[in-house]
Amino acid sequence: MKASSNIEQLRNIINKELNLLLPQKSSIADLLVQAMHYSVMGGGKRIRPILALAACESSGANATKAIDSACAIELIHAYSLIHDDLPAMDDDTLRHGQPSTHVQFGQAQAILAGDALQSLAFQLISDSKGLTATTKIDIVRILSTAIGWNGMAGGQSMDIESDGTNLSLSEIKALHKAKTGALIQASVEIGAIASNKIAMESKEFTALSEFGSSIGLAFQIVDDLLDVSATTDELGKPSHSDQRNKKKTFIDVLGLEKSKALASKITQEGIVLLKQTDLNTDVLESIALECINRTK
Amino acid sequence: MKASSNIEQLRNIINKELNLLLPQKSSIADLLVQAMHYSVMGGGKRIRPILALAACESSGANATKAIDSACAIELIHAYSLIHDDLPAMDDDTLRHGQPSTHVQFGQAQAILAGDALQSLAFQLISDSKGLTATTKIDIVRILSTAIGWNGMAGGQSMDIESDGTNLSLSEIKALHKAKTGALIQASVEIGAIASNKIAMESKEFTALSEFGSSIGLAFQIVDDLLDVSATTDELGKPSHSDQRNKKKTFIDVLGLEKSKALASKITQEGIVLLKQTDLNTDVLESIALECINRTK
Repeated sequence: MKASSNIEQLRNIINKELNLLLPQKSSIADLLVQAMHYSVMGGGKRIRPILALAACESSGANATKAIDSACAIELIHAYSLIHDDLPAMDDDTLRHGQPSTHVQFGQAQAILAGDALQSLAFQLISDSKGLTATTKIDIVRILSTAIGWNGMAGGQSMDIESDGTNLSLSEIKALHKAKTGALIQASVEIGAIASNKIAMESKEFTALSEFGSSIGLAFQIVDDLLDVSATTDELGKPSHSDQRNKKKTFIDVLGLEKSKALASKITQEGIVLLKQTDLNTDVLESIALECINRTK
Repeated sequence: MKASSNIEQLRNIINKELNLLLPQKSSIADLLVQAMHYSVMGGGKRIRPILALAACESSGANATKAIDSACAIELIHAYSLIHDDLPAMDDDTLRHGQPSTHVQFGQAQAILAGDALQSLAFQLISDSKGLTATTKIDIVRILSTAIGWNGMAGGQSMDIESDGTNLSLSEIKALHKAKTGALIQASVEIGAIASNKIAMESKEFTALSEFGSSIGLAFQIVDDLLDVSATTDELGKPSHSDQRNKKKTFIDVLGLEKSKALASKITQEGIVLLKQTDLNTDVLESIALECINRTK
């Protein structure tokens, strides 16, 4: 694995690793293991783990340093999608062009597959090769904080509670900063920490972290835009779901054109921050542009 | 906090700490934070964290070394109860004599409260005072493995799948070793590791670990016995739920008397292992006896 791999190379590395690390069979719970495998390997752009590997490489370190942590992040993302899709939550029956996990395996196994993927993520970090215990614990802290009550889970809780209500622009931003942004920001931070070349107190870390925050928000705005402009076939998940679930989006508050402009502006601001460092950030910039120009 | 505290003292320490560490309010997700608090502070015997503190003290170390990890274990236990009680799982509407979390807060918030409690457990360990990073990572590894696809979550998956089917004694043992036993065993192991006086390769660690495994199984047999002999009022959760959910229990296979005898035998075997070490295991023995003589 050489420094400055391109996005497709990083995606391939991640897909191969995920397939290797997921349990293949169990003496007690084969259905659970199948549901975990189905949910993780069924598809996905792998944006978050790619960001982690690219952030690691931006310091000149080898991406192998961050591979276990990057995969752990994707397991967390997969768990969140399984639980978000449940009937009690967003009630989505399609994901990555396939039946959602609870449709395929039943709700009980879907809930448990999500739970077990979260645990496996922390197990994977604890077993990660080539990192010191201090680095691993920093990664556990960043990840567990980003996905917890004041991060991803908190954002999803706010999202469910605010269905059908009016939210201001700042409330929508706070919601998505937690629900989507926190894990994306953590992905960049974790990649940086895993490199062992970027200290948490350094200006490089701050720049990467703020870049992560920026593209996390831009990513969500583009999600809102695609929900109204793309088809279910293109997305691999039901389009127009925000309208159906009476969710207030950036588009409701800003309109289509201003939302597009905001996503571009935020992304550019993030890229400017990166350019002010001595890091090699070409791949991170490519990912940022891919995120806002994507069609699914 | 002095060495060899009694069970009631340890329980009080844990209840106080849990109340302190749980988030009190959130700018984005107050309902989630309330649901987490309700689920953890609503009741519970605190057997697992008491075991962790007692295992830590058995080496002569101060229980403060293990307090954060002990609380993390109780958060994990609380999360598992919330998810187990969901309609898609065991569909229990009563827990600790109160409405189950999903009855009180709705299914979406209950699922998220469980998810966020799992994350908070790992956050708590990463932030734990007085432990080296190496010890913390060992604790993350033991806990995440015990509760994952081949442990607690795997056992619950097998339990759901085997409703209404016949299980052999060895299958029932394998199920409960994973579903209930793994976290109880991990509690003792984590307390030992946190003391920083018991190495994972030592015969003391092995004895404590096997003691944990023994009482984990005995605990579940007593649960099965209480489910048929105690009332809903006494249990604070619905009695006769195994029969209602068509679950095969130790009593179905062994009968009432042989099940009682097995629980006693396993517990005594665990205690004998402890007595062969130089550890101060009085409190651990008391907990073991309290576990099998309990009435709820």
